[in-house]
Amino acid sequence: MIKIINPSKKQFNELTQRPALSFDFLQAQIEEIFKEVAAEGDEALVKYTQQFDHVELDHIRVAPSRLKQAYDNLSVALFQSLKQAASNIRKFHEAQVPENIEVSINGNILVEQRAIPIDRIGIYIPGGSAPLISTILMLAIPANIAKCTEIALFSPPSDDGKIHPSILATAYFMGIQEVYQIGGAQAIAAMSLGTDSIKPVSKIFGPGNQYVTAAKEFALRNGTAFDLPAGPSELLIYTDGSGIPAFMAADLLSQAEHGADSQVILIAPTESVLDEVMQEINRQLKNLPRKEIAAAALEKSLAIQFESEEIAFEWINKYAPEHLIIASETPRKYIGKIRNAGSVFLGNYCPESAGDYASGTNHTLPTQQWAKSYSGVNMDAFYKKISYQEISRSGLDKLSKTITCLAREEQLEAHARAVEIRSSKSMKS
Amino acid sequence: MIKIINPSKKQFNELTQRPALSFDFLQAQIEEIFKEVAAEGDEALVKYTQQFDHVELDHIRVAPSRLKQAYDNLSVALFQSLKQAASNIRKFHEAQVPENIEVSINGNILVEQRAIPIDRIGIYIPGGSAPLISTILMLAIPANIAKCTEIALFSPPSDDGKIHPSILATAYFMGIQEVYQIGGAQAIAAMSLGTDSIKPVSKIFGPGNQYVTAAKEFALRNGTAFDLPAGPSELLIYTDGSGIPAFMAADLLSQAEHGADSQVILIAPTESVLDEVMQEINRQLKNLPRKEIAAAALEKSLAIQFESEEIAFEWINKYAPEHLIIASETPRKYIGKIRNAGSVFLGNYCPESAGDYASGTNHTLPTQQWAKSYSGVNMDAFYKKISYQEISRSGLDKLSKTITCLAREEQLEAHARAVEIRSSKSMKS
Repeated sequence: MIKIINPSKKQFNELTQRPALSFDFLQAQIEEIFKEVAAEGDEALVKYTQQFDHVELDHIRVAPSRLKQAYDNLSVALFQSLKQAASNIRKFHEAQVPENIEVSINGNILVEQRAIPIDRIGIYIPGGSAPLISTILMLAIPANIAKCTEIALFSPPSDDGKIHPSILATAYFMGIQEVYQIGGAQAIAAMSLGTDSIKPVSKIFGPGNQYVTAAKEFALRNGTAFDLPAGPSELLIYTDGSGIPAFMAADLLSQAEHGADSQVILIAPTESVLDEVMQEINRQLKNLPRKEIAAAALEKSLAIQFESEEIAFEWINKYAPEHLIIASETPRKYIGKIRNAGSVFLGNYCPESAGDYASGTNHTLPTQQWAKSYSGVNMDAFYKKISYQEISRSGLDKLSKTITCLAREEQLEAHARAVEIRSSKSMKS
Repeated sequence: MIKIINPSKKQFNELTQRPALSFDFLQAQIEEIFKEVAAEGDEALVKYTQQFDHVELDHIRVAPSRLKQAYDNLSVALFQSLKQAASNIRKFHEAQVPENIEVSINGNILVEQRAIPIDRIGIYIPGGSAPLISTILMLAIPANIAKCTEIALFSPPSDDGKIHPSILATAYFMGIQEVYQIGGAQAIAAMSLGTDSIKPVSKIFGPGNQYVTAAKEFALRNGTAFDLPAGPSELLIYTDGSGIPAFMAADLLSQAEHGADSQVILIAPTESVLDEVMQEINRQLKNLPRKEIAAAALEKSLAIQFESEEIAFEWINKYAPEHLIIASETPRKYIGKIRNAGSVFLGNYCPESAGDYASGTNHTLPTQQWAKSYSGVNMDAFYKKISYQEISRSGLDKLSKTITCLAREEQLEAHARAVEIRSSKSMKS
């Protein structure tokens, strides 16, 4: 880690910089994939799966019987874990279900807001050797609570030509029937454009590599929404000195093992705390299976001592971390100071991995300073909020002068007349 | 209008098509503007204002005294109208303020969600002869309710070298101190990148022409969020036969006068109702000031009779209109059938212009089928929802097996160890 003591305010912006992510160089390739999928449909999906995943598909959709079979073969331990995690995630997300709102304005005008689920969503689950089954829970549980009518899950086949059985089992556990063994930008193109065998979705959820991320941006231009701008995962630990160095080291390593581009930051009130945690990191790093990855991430990581608590939080809110651990015996002291973060972990017994899997919060969170303007995935992401107004004749009379005055100021005469025609006495159907 | 009787389901998709909006051709120009603003800052803003608005700026920010002066000079009628509209908008949006959520999971795990306002937002108000003052209300009122700390308003100077006084007056009325006389893509670039005299914002709100829209997409890639993908305004009227033709015609015209690209649709149960409304349109169109614009929009507009009410709503939800008027004496009969719309107007005395200005609902709404996945601007748009978890030592023990099992299934060993290190008995700070 790079140790920084009392950085000046001039350094503040520079220290918040993440590696710039630009997917512009992928534009041409992604555009080509979208064009092909639009023109050739399923055939293009089969072609790209051969090209990128080296798998010869004989069908695009996974047979529902294979989902059930994978589920039946789940180990008891994994099944129990999925069940407990799902139960906690469900509890927290059920508490977030938005209520319909009804407001009476002046008695004769009724204004409402209702949350209506997005009908059809797509979930992307990356492939590779490790099946990201927790992400299926994080996206399917709120979709089920919101009552999204249709969920389609996309994941690339592994080298053995199949989606990892734990992914299929978790999909079945979540009640997902529609699973397509398609990955990469072609999966995103299929979700956005549709093909003969795939109905397009209205919103795409889920993480992915740079191709998937670039394709999600492209899908947006094509009319398909997506959850969040994506970037490498981040953890910032703030300790007031009452955190436990071995625990903090373990948390920083759990973030660092995600990838060499993971962002890991430690803030402590004294240099000796910084040193202690760094020593612990070196000790724990040695026998980690993913130690090369973690070491690479740690190399560019920051260990900072600020001049004061106040300045530390000023900088933290500028940095806007995805995950923020308050390693303290009295973590609630700091909660009011946090303005920009994805998810906050309070106290010494609250590792980031608790939120990654099982505390009930969602792990799909804003990175790259997006926590300044974006929420992590929560129930809102699965609804549109529609507004309604009902106005009686006398209610409209009360608004008439205001509407016509503002409309004429904006030089929209027909807007004014649409009101006036309704108040003229003679009008009857 | 183009009359269509009993369209087949095969035509359904085609009938929902809006004109494709692609801003790709503007990319190079927008990129150049961003580069210039990044490199030259305020100087670039002055240069582009000269080039595009033909105005020689001697300062970028409008003096606060000019805002007050414009406010003091507001006509009584306009002031009263702003006041009534603002009061209704405030009532509806105050009712939407999200509540903090606290859930106890198994007694030892506390999970929370809090809505924290976005600190600094930018509002773009287009220029031209008509000052869109209602949009200032629609964006500044919820920002004020959410307690966004800073609001910066951008609008291009008119031919006379100044922002329209009604815009300045309304900004002052809303408590906005920071007004910049900069428009177009350069305003969006300034909001996203910042300059010597302008602090960057975290989220950009407000409508604009194709340059502004393309620039907002570009700003997103640069880390600045925006409210909604934009497109030409839309109105769909559904009548069950109990709507009043003259009223419906007036509403369709109020939409059509927005621009030649406005989307206007009428759905009625019989051809004779379609004909009656179309005759009324021709009658009312004659003495509208913006009749050329309205006529151009109407030329490509649709008047459709579907085979049944059920099929009509199936299509309406596929079309997903920005504004949906239910022209009926019993409009609530249909409310449960609406799944995709921006804002819904119930009954014969509820013109779209009521929602545009004064019913209390927000007029910044999703077009171009975005109502399938996006909400219109509402209170949520001005907050991030942050999640928090606090876990006791015994709470973590209860989660331990679940977290370690899922982490190891995902091959993230350090995630598992971050939990195990906390349950080992020997550990103490």
